Amino acid sequence: MDISNITNKIKLKSNTLFKNDFLLTWDKSQQELELLLEIAEALKYLRANNHSCKVFDSGLAVSLFRDNSTRTRFSFASACNLLGLTVQDLDETKSQISHGETLRETATMISFLSEVIGIRDDMYPGLGHTYMKDFSAALNESYSENVLPQKPPVINLQCDLDHPTQSMADLMHLKNHFGSLENLKGKKIAMTWAYSPSYGKPLSVPQGVISLMTRFGMDVSLAHPEGYELFPDIVDKAKAFSHKFGGSFNVTNSMDEAFKNADIVYPKSWAPFAVMQERSVLLRNDKHKQLEELEMQCLKQNAEHIKWECNSEKMNLTNNALYMHCLPADISGVSCKQGEVSADVFEKHRINTYKQAGYKPYIIAAMIFASKFKLPGEKLKELLLNSSQRIK
Amino acid sequence: MDISNITNKIKLKSNTLFKNDFLLTWDKSQQELELLLEIAEALKYLRANNHSCKVFDSGLAVSLFRDNSTRTRFSFASACNLLGLTVQDLDETKSQISHGETLRETATMISFLSEVIGIRDDMYPGLGHTYMKDFSAALNESYSENVLPQKPPVINLQCDLDHPTQSMADLMHLKNHFGSLENLKGKKIAMTWAYSPSYGKPLSVPQGVISLMTRFGMDVSLAHPEGYELFPDIVDKAKAFSHKFGGSFNVTNSMDEAFKNADIVYPKSWAPFAVMQERSVLLRNDKHKQLEELEMQCLKQNAEHIKWECNSEKMNLTNNALYMHCLPADISGVSCKQGEVSADVFEKHRINTYKQAGYKPYIIAAMIFASKFKLPGEKLKELLLNSSQRIK
Amino acid sequence: MDISNITNKIKLKSNTLFKNDFLLTWDKSQQELELLLEIAEALKYLRANNHSCKVFDSGLAVSLFRDNSTRTRFSFASACNLLGLTVQDLDETKSQISHGETLRETATMISFLSEVIGIRDDMYPGLGHTYMKDFSAALNESYSENVLPQKPPVINLQCDLDHPTQSMADLMHLKNHFGSLENLKGKKIAMTWAYSPSYGKPLSVPQGVISLMTRFGMDVSLAHPEGYELFPDIVDKAKAFSHKFGGSFNVTNSMDEAFKNADIVYPKSWAPFAVMQERSVLLRNDKHKQLEELEMQCLKQNAEHIKWECNSEKMNLTNNALYMHCLPADISGVSCKQGEVSADVFEKHRINTYKQAGYKPYIIAAMIFASKFKLPGEKLKELLLNSSQRIK
Repeated sequence: MDISNITNKIKLKSNTLFKNDFLLTWDKSQQELELLLEIAEALKYLRANNHSCKVFDSGLAVSLFRDNSTRTRFSFASACNLLGLTVQDLDETKSQISHGETLRETATMISFLSEVIGIRDDMYPGLGHTYMKDFSAALNESYSENVLPQKPPVINLQCDLDHPTQSMADLMHLKNHFGSLENLKGKKIAMTWAYSPSYGKPLSVPQGVISLMTRFGMDVSLAHPEGYELFPDIVDKAKAFSHKFGGSFNVTNSMDEAFKNADIVYPKSWAPFAVMQERSVLLRNDKHKQLEELEMQCLKQNAEHIKWECNSEKMNLTNNALYMHCLPADISGVSCKQGEVSADVFEKHRINTYKQAGYKPYIIAAMIFASKFKLPGEKLKELLLNSSQRIK
Repeated sequence: MDISNITNKIKLKSNTLFKNDFLLTWDKSQQELELLLEIAEALKYLRANNHSCKVFDSGLAVSLFRDNSTRTRFSFASACNLLGLTVQDLDETKSQISHGETLRETATMISFLSEVIGIRDDMYPGLGHTYMKDFSAALNESYSENVLPQKPPVINLQCDLDHPTQSMADLMHLKNHFGSLENLKGKKIAMTWAYSPSYGKPLSVPQGVISLMTRFGMDVSLAHPEGYELFPDIVDKAKAFSHKFGGSFNVTNSMDEAFKNADIVYPKSWAPFAVMQERSVLLRNDKHKQLEELEMQCLKQNAEHIKWECNSEKMNLTNNALYMHCLPADISGVSCKQGEVSADVFEKHRINTYKQAGYKPYIIAAMIFASKFKLPGEKLKELLLNSSQRIK
Repeated sequence: MDISNITNKIKLKSNTLFKNDFLLTWDKSQQELELLLEIAEALKYLRANNHSCKVFDSGLAVSLFRDNSTRTRFSFASACNLLGLTVQDLDETKSQISHGETLRETATMISFLSEVIGIRDDMYPGLGHTYMKDFSAALNESYSENVLPQKPPVINLQCDLDHPTQSMADLMHLKNHFGSLENLKGKKIAMTWAYSPSYGKPLSVPQGVISLMTRFGMDVSLAHPEGYELFPDIVDKAKAFSHKFGGSFNVTNSMDEAFKNADIVYPKSWAPFAVMQERSVLLRNDKHKQLEELEMQCLKQNAEHIKWECNSEKMNLTNNALYMHCLPADISGVSCKQGEVSADVFEKHRINTYKQAGYKPYIIAAMIFASKFKLPGEKLKELLLNSSQRIK
């Protein structure tokens, strides 16, 4: 890889990500998304070649996980560490938040010396994104009132609408797998629902994928059983993007149709939107019995679609497709009796799913980097020319 | 701000905080407290101007929170990170402490490569301060026996008696708000009890405030309903300080009297001392039923004083007073039905309470700094002249 | 200490620990173990003399504790921090592991930018070591498939078979206490069972001690009541080592016999191997009632051997022995009614047990150091000659 080319290329771009949050990919321009990919590539190169990427000598990076996480937690920790930031987890069970502390207040209290805030809040439709916006607004107020010496950008580590660190890592994976963004044009990607014996999985991954891949000239086919629709607004966005960027977008209720001649398949379970909304209301009102009933009903509904499994029969319909998954997958006979993907298909593509996951730390690091440095290309060049080694 | 003046001023002072714990403000001299404020100001200036404050290249800072915390946890983490230390939390639920490890042993086991220990233990009257003293004594023994290569200072992050990182941050806020410590002379501060629908709040904040502000020539008025007395010893200290330092101190059972012509008001709930003592005994003996009864009885007692709310009527009695709170406040109609402060008064002063909170990281950093460097002024000057930047 | 001598000595040795895990001491050569001790001494010297030991500018160190821990947790944190690594804890309760994530996958997901993995998994005989091997194999696969840019070594922080960071710290303590490894030849060490009112303590400490000390020419006497046998394979190893390295090894059912003329005693409780195996099966199958019955039965069995206490009467049998314990000890009348050691004996030797514990951070740091640098002597010399100070 010619890193000088990349840093020179980056140098020429204006960086409108500077001082901004990263909440939704569709709020960002094409140029901004490409800039991020280039910064991520450059950071990956620098680390691989033992250059120090430590642009911060001190500073906290706050993580707030309102749902369990391994991959994203470690990706965020890795990204922050690479740049020199120290992660401080805001563990709501150990804090006084339960004692009446408001979001607005908390946002400020944890940010006096913080450089970035990463939030995962994906459980309740209509809430996660709103929470992040409110959090960011509170930080803006405190910055403008001279309470904070800086306004830490908020990075969306998964909300109810989008999962940008995932979808951008997916895009980086596709770019590397197929050689360039240019090469993605005309490639067919099947973003399909798949059966899982669990329920309540967020919709943000499929929503993130269809709304991003339609911007790179891909033929995006969204498939799911009836009743498993995504957020209508985001489906509309995907449609509009496909028109604007010269790809295509279609929705089908047939997994086979989506898989047919696909170059990439992304079979993954998610909950019906209506169920997630009902669940939100029940959870907020502590209606445990109704929640159990909802779960039963939802699992029953899932069970009608047990054939939505990515197996070799299905894979044979494709154009020797690349299999993708955000992990962990529900693997039939391995992590569950019957799941999203058959054991043989998963095993064949397992290493590729690991590679896919491996881009996430660099995507997160690039998001932080771009939000912190007005001239990321100059800064990356400095790191390249600097003699400081990561391992001495 | 003329930082050179500050560092020069600091250079001239002998630093008797060197190698010492910071447990109680009243154990420290006037000069020591002023030195701390100056170091805190200098560190704040250095960070704001992108100077590295990283005086440690490695080293652990241990935090031990025996009560929930957001603000203090993040303040401690921020302070340590600013100086180059890495926080390692001693989470008693994940440790073997429950398996019979003694305090004396634990203190040493966590300190082999540790530079500072921060402890919050504010739940039981008669215990928190003692715990910190014992912890420190154990560290002293191990240092003198060549078990430890250094004796990490213990920083009180709130005990049953005092909350010095809070009261010193409060003082720093007042100094900045009114322009100088000199300007605080003759200012009236009302440290008053306020109604809250919760119970069991520690007494260390009001105790810390009355025992500190009386040392800077302020007119301190302590107000609470009958039965909500503070630790008698500390009230006596405040009285003695007011005589020595030319201010005044009075205790009243009328919120109005305290608020009258006050320049600063600090209305905050706390538990009756007697209740806290009884609670201690019950908690240690796992008497859950009696604890519930005590809580009921205490809430009933609180409810008799529901009029102790800081509202605009009360604020009209003051000399256009600065409202202070250590946060989170119980805000009527916001975080509870009826609480310490009305929503309109809190909203008007909200930003100021955030500013107040923002000094805490620097106060903690200054406490660590002073305990670690014999000549803090020289060291700060080095940081000022050093070309090392915090963000590169 | 002549650090130049040490670093020169280290420079002459080939480092076959480079790029390898550290799982069991008996997988390592004599030369490798001695190299580790020398690196540990050098790092201890460097830190004591305020030299920076920060060989990493960034990088994560993952800790995975499947059992509670204070000492080992802080030792690992201290070691990593000394070298410049940031610990990220893999807390299985906060991760998605429970949601069907496989070990193989998890290993890779947490390692994209990680430099070392420390694992404690000591609860189930037959499982801990296997888990670590599987974890390491997964990392090797991902490294060979270009998923990981490095293969982080796995450090055993205690498994079912061995506790190498403990036994090596114990050896370092003995080396320093008696002046040299050479001086350990012919010294008698009594590794004996002792009574404890708890049950289920791992066997890895006695197993680690007998299999390590027999390699340094010591006379190792293992004593326990009938029914408290250790893993037979490891007892065989100790026997073989004693023949090979010119010491002796005997097993007895008499505490007195072991203590007689001992230069070192290490009295410590452990569970019967058969009980641990049965417990493993019951735990894996969630048989709570049977587990309780097993515990009752085991405690009853323990109670028959309440006289296995290290008290002054027993100590009088020894050659003024050094008392050792990995801590926390069950101290009669202090941490329990009747335990492993009498209060007076423990108090007399308490400081020495603290010293023993204090070597562990340096042993862990040495294990990481040796796995990361092909020429550890060169690297240590660089740190010695480098002007970079730990505290500036």
